[in-house]
Amino acid sequence: MKTIGLVTGGGDAPGLNAVIRAAVKTAVGEYGLRVVGVEDSFEGLLGETRVRELMPADVRGLLPRGGTILGTRNRGRFVVRDADGGHHRRPEDVYREAVANLERLSIEALVVIGGEGTLTIATEFDRLGFPVVGVPKTIDNDLAATELTFGFMTALDIATEALDRLHTTAESHDRVMLLEVMGRHAGWIALHSGVSGGADVILIPEIPFSMAKVAEKVSEREKCDSQFSIIVVAEGAKEVEGSEVYQDMGDAQGSPRLGGMGHHIAHELGRLTGKEARCVVLGHLQRGGSPNAFDRMLATNFGSAAVRALQRGERGVMVSLQAANIRTVPIADAVANLKTVQPESQLVRTARDVGVSFGALNEDDYHKHEIC
Amino acid sequence: MKTIGLVTGGGDAPGLNAVIRAAVKTAVGEYGLRVVGVEDSFEGLLGETRVRELMPADVRGLLPRGGTILGTRNRGRFVVRDADGGHHRRPEDVYREAVANLERLSIEALVVIGGEGTLTIATEFDRLGFPVVGVPKTIDNDLAATELTFGFMTALDIATEALDRLHTTAESHDRVMLLEVMGRHAGWIALHSGVSGGADVILIPEIPFSMAKVAEKVSEREKCDSQFSIIVVAEGAKEVEGSEVYQDMGDAQGSPRLGGMGHHIAHELGRLTGKEARCVVLGHLQRGGSPNAFDRMLATNFGSAAVRALQRGERGVMVSLQAANIRTVPIADAVANLKTVQPESQLVRTARDVGVSFGALNEDDYHKHEIC
Amino acid sequence: MKTIGLVTGGGDAPGLNAVIRAAVKTAVGEYGLRVVGVEDSFEGLLGETRVRELMPADVRGLLPRGGTILGTRNRGRFVVRDADGGHHRRPEDVYREAVANLERLSIEALVVIGGEGTLTIATEFDRLGFPVVGVPKTIDNDLAATELTFGFMTALDIATEALDRLHTTAESHDRVMLLEVMGRHAGWIALHSGVSGGADVILIPEIPFSMAKVAEKVSEREKCDSQFSIIVVAEGAKEVEGSEVYQDMGDAQGSPRLGGMGHHIAHELGRLTGKEARCVVLGHLQRGGSPNAFDRMLATNFGSAAVRALQRGERGVMVSLQAANIRTVPIADAVANLKTVQPESQLVRTARDVGVSFGALNEDDYHKHEIC
Amino acid sequence: MKTIGLVTGGGDAPGLNAVIRAAVKTAVGEYGLRVVGVEDSFEGLLGETRVRELMPADVRGLLPRGGTILGTRNRGRFVVRDADGGHHRRPEDVYREAVANLERLSIEALVVIGGEGTLTIATEFDRLGFPVVGVPKTIDNDLAATELTFGFMTALDIATEALDRLHTTAESHDRVMLLEVMGRHAGWIALHSGVSGGADVILIPEIPFSMAKVAEKVSEREKCDSQFSIIVVAEGAKEVEGSEVYQDMGDAQGSPRLGGMGHHIAHELGRLTGKEARCVVLGHLQRGGSPNAFDRMLATNFGSAAVRALQRGERGVMVSLQAANIRTVPIADAVANLKTVQPESQLVRTARDVGVSFGALNEDDYHKHEIC
Repeated sequence: MKTIGLVTGGGDAPGLNAVIRAAVKTAVGEYGLRVVGVEDSFEGLLGETRVRELMPADVRGLLPRGGTILGTRNRGRFVVRDADGGHHRRPEDVYREAVANLERLSIEALVVIGGEGTLTIATEFDRLGFPVVGVPKTIDNDLAATELTFGFMTALDIATEALDRLHTTAESHDRVMLLEVMGRHAGWIALHSGVSGGADVILIPEIPFSMAKVAEKVSEREKCDSQFSIIVVAEGAKEVEGSEVYQDMGDAQGSPRLGGMGHHIAHELGRLTGKEARCVVLGHLQRGGSPNAFDRMLATNFGSAAVRALQRGERGVMVSLQAANIRTVPIADAVANLKTVQPESQLVRTARDVGVSFGALNEDDYHKHEIC
Repeated sequence: MKTIGLVTGGGDAPGLNAVIRAAVKTAVGEYGLRVVGVEDSFEGLLGETRVRELMPADVRGLLPRGGTILGTRNRGRFVVRDADGGHHRRPEDVYREAVANLERLSIEALVVIGGEGTLTIATEFDRLGFPVVGVPKTIDNDLAATELTFGFMTALDIATEALDRLHTTAESHDRVMLLEVMGRHAGWIALHSGVSGGADVILIPEIPFSMAKVAEKVSEREKCDSQFSIIVVAEGAKEVEGSEVYQDMGDAQGSPRLGGMGHHIAHELGRLTGKEARCVVLGHLQRGGSPNAFDRMLATNFGSAAVRALQRGERGVMVSLQAANIRTVPIADAVANLKTVQPESQLVRTARDVGVSFGALNEDDYHKHEIC
Repeated sequence: MKTIGLVTGGGDAPGLNAVIRAAVKTAVGEYGLRVVGVEDSFEGLLGETRVRELMPADVRGLLPRGGTILGTRNRGRFVVRDADGGHHRRPEDVYREAVANLERLSIEALVVIGGEGTLTIATEFDRLGFPVVGVPKTIDNDLAATELTFGFMTALDIATEALDRLHTTAESHDRVMLLEVMGRHAGWIALHSGVSGGADVILIPEIPFSMAKVAEKVSEREKCDSQFSIIVVAEGAKEVEGSEVYQDMGDAQGSPRLGGMGHHIAHELGRLTGKEARCVVLGHLQRGGSPNAFDRMLATNFGSAAVRALQRGERGVMVSLQAANIRTVPIADAVANLKTVQPESQLVRTARDVGVSFGALNEDDYHKHEIC
Repeated sequence: MKTIGLVTGGGDAPGLNAVIRAAVKTAVGEYGLRVVGVEDSFEGLLGETRVRELMPADVRGLLPRGGTILGTRNRGRFVVRDADGGHHRRPEDVYREAVANLERLSIEALVVIGGEGTLTIATEFDRLGFPVVGVPKTIDNDLAATELTFGFMTALDIATEALDRLHTTAESHDRVMLLEVMGRHAGWIALHSGVSGGADVILIPEIPFSMAKVAEKVSEREKCDSQFSIIVVAEGAKEVEGSEVYQDMGDAQGSPRLGGMGHHIAHELGRLTGKEARCVVLGHLQRGGSPNAFDRMLATNFGSAAVRALQRGERGVMVSLQAANIRTVPIADAVANLKTVQPESQLVRTARDVGVSFGALNEDDYHKHEIC
């Protein structure tokens, strides 16, 4: 193997550039390979192709820099999401064109850095016989095959700092402050940052909440002389069907402009508790910018390990973190198994033990003693 | 004078607790005074009153802590905003009750920490003959009588860090990213953070913008091979009346749920430029939490200087920063003169000199040479 | 069990207060226990005893606060370090006095938060039949029984940010900049922060370095047109015996005032390479202050899990992180096995793959290709 | 004027690159000038010369980056410091060579960014008739002609954060913790960060301290049940001559290896108070790295204003901040007047009012009441 290609796909995550830097340094410095960067995800492999050689000098200073120097514009020519959010594959000729271009460019294998969607595309290349090694990228940390993905810890730092800031305002002004964080299907960011930021209520997709139960928690805190509450809401938090308050929500849901779950809950809680409730949506702030120390280390480890895996002949695998070690797992398995918060898991239990409510209908089963 | 009172009013600002700490330490340690903290702004002076003595031990560790230990719940019994946003005074008997309570509590003077509204109330106490010294508090930094107010620099740090994070995502994904910051009548946070965060466009209330001009700037940047743009929007940014695009805005304005100026502009720009445009609203994140080094210093200086002013017999004045010194000015003058960005001021000129567009109709008069 | 005690011992680590908070909230809120905090480590159990009940209200706001509200003054009455740095136990009557006092105070079990020394004392209580559960605390992250300890990640963030700052100065001024970090016996902080901060050389106790090899790396970088180098030094870094430069070191070693390994290496490198070399010693900056998001979460999990372990009858065990789960292990085993960096481990390999030199005599075996 | 040159000289300061960026964007974009960057300070103007054209594309992304892309290697060929620390000028032929080279390169004027030394060199160019405009750079903020210099606020943030971290350790472990910061002749960083970081003692060159008085303050705090103290020491802090403890210092002063004023004081205080005292030297950490929001804004304003000054015909002047505006002052005047802390100034008074001791012999005159 003399030349490998690098592809980055999907949304931004702190650490993408650190993966690129490590992969280039390892490939060139350790194995004497040539590295070609593909621009704009797999799109850069179609038509005229948009690629450029990456030398160690090109990746200098990339470690602390957010984003990806390769760009990740995506026109969806390789894959589209169907109505259910699932992936629908495009005709094989698009893939064949890409592979033909790779061969024309003398690229013999690809390191593909991306989320579930991008890695699913990568498995197609593998199925066509083109060697691929994947590097998982998801801010949500929802891939079962790896304990952690880079970017997640940075997102937690940002969300936790936001909670610290909201705390002082909530406390001084007797308010309910909500922070909406990412997590459409998995509540990892909400759960972790909620515990780290001292939230009183954490609402995640995996534990449907009752608005009445949340309002109850806010009111109970008032009895404990805590006139404020801090609530973390995953964007995909789900209300319990049939709950008392659920009917009111109909209108709100019909009006998506209300602006997401966080604003909806703030509005309802204000109505139910008579307190001022405000919501901040963290949005893109939690997925861009410089990675923290851990994410730089993990990204470097992933980038370097991916090249080593290619070099020793592994194909169709993804690097992953397991028990503090980097291992490889089949990409196909990895993308097939999403990791969601188990409602009876340790961290959920710890959160409840320190007084956090998840707004579940059976929430009272968990908080047995007064902790005023 | 043996006993003074402390009142904090209005919205949160990093440094409130630092003012309280400095005032208590100066009053007790330097002048041997007794200090009484009034809870929940002036409301704590009505009815049963809610006050407590503050000893130096009570203010230990307050310097880095956001919020105010005195709380600022406000039920508007002293003042309400009328329809025009101006202040409408309540009957004098509310004030007389407060003054009677102050006398009953042996409080001989008040240090009042607050914004335009709170300080306007303070002038009423002064008019009734009750000694008051004010400490200005406004995140927006829009008081003419002082060069800077505490909390403003911290807000700039937060907004600038947010811009850094949006930058990497915008650049990697070829997007238009907007950040909406505070500033209903004055664009100071937008202007300063826009310059510090390397924004391409800054939209402030003082310089009405044309949506077409903003779209033009985004498109010009594409010609310079910059496929992304960063835009900072003050919440009070105003569109030029009669501009080509203005008509379309009618509906949006009629639909406040769309969510503020930032989201509105993102939507319009997406339509006009065909690019993905996303908006993040910084909201409460820019007004809570720990103050930065400068704001802690300024707040300490203000708190200490306010007590010194009281002690040397000044009344009805507000401490202010002028040419690196703390001075005092009449509160009445201070609240009468708001400070807005002068469209031809130095920092606006510098911003334009480094390539920033304010979206003004005559914007082309300022950018004479290509800077690709 | 009705009453448990909390003890914190040893040096500072970000997260101690978070452990206390979680333990109190879990014990009181979940199990209805009474919690007594012991002041100044085990010393508070002797003589008059210094203890105080901890209610949930007492631990409010502790999550982001560094240090320990219980204090950790240590007069060494329970244990002293002998000449070899090993622990020498004190006569059993000190322990018996402590246990008698615990019984008098109706404390039925202890949660002990501390490092190797403190946990070793804890095993003595266990041996005397007094129930103990340990929570590991070591900034150095050198306990084999747990993948991570709280405080370590925060230390990495601080060291990495320091490296970022040194980087720009080194690059602009063509200097060799050294950062000395903690790690007397284990190089974890140096290794991790070195990888995250883009160091060119990492010197750790586990891989003895040759000064000549380090100087060689600095000179090689000059050939690659990198006129600067960044070096991370663990305080316990060891020079290879018999290396060419070793003899010169004699004097320096005889003069401990020179100020640690970092300053020594800076001095020698300046002499060997003719470049300006400067050293910054991070010292206490890396072990105090507010914990980052991860450390708050881990500390909370540890504190809560320790109380749960006590409650379900476990004794003589320590909570630990293994494969993303909190488990318990015998304290005696935990303190007997320190974890050091394995010279052939993955992260060392990754570091070398991205171009880092460890200054080993056989360093050339690892860097086969030029990476200019 | 068609072409201008840029020179950066002296030690690192956060914001140098931001000045370069603003100067280039203003010169090229606003005035259509050509900009040439001179490498390695004025040295790049000798011999073969080391210069390169700077286009707007070359300064993209520089705003948040520390250091200077032009480098500041200095071999002292233009100036050397004499034994008294004063500047001794080199023979005029070095200057003439530089001017001849500037003319050969068609550079018609220079923007010189530097501290006292670099700006003194700049005045020589001005005296020889070569147009120069200066931009002041000093972390110490000790130029009388400008209220603030870029980099100072960032240094304060770093020092204040360091104090926050030391605080928790000092408090938990009953220690005296010292932080040594920059300031050989002026104590601005120590004074400001000391106030912002809640120091108990601040030692600066302008107020000679008595070791006995400092020890007294530490002991008084113990009586107030504060078993710890935080001390900020400017590197140039001076002990009062003839003070009781002064004689002991003789040896220490004779042994520079002891490592600066901070370590010396820690050692003496440990001896005098019987408490553990530790010192951290911030060193280069306070002068490298990314500038904070204010420093980016100020640096941008300075860079842009310097080009505007050149363009409107000003020569031999330096841009400066006065009462929130950028003005120009003669460089010669600016470098002739250093700004030191006035012992009776407002901030010193505020510091004392909040309980800070400066260790002065007459310190007791200022702290009249107990503030336990």
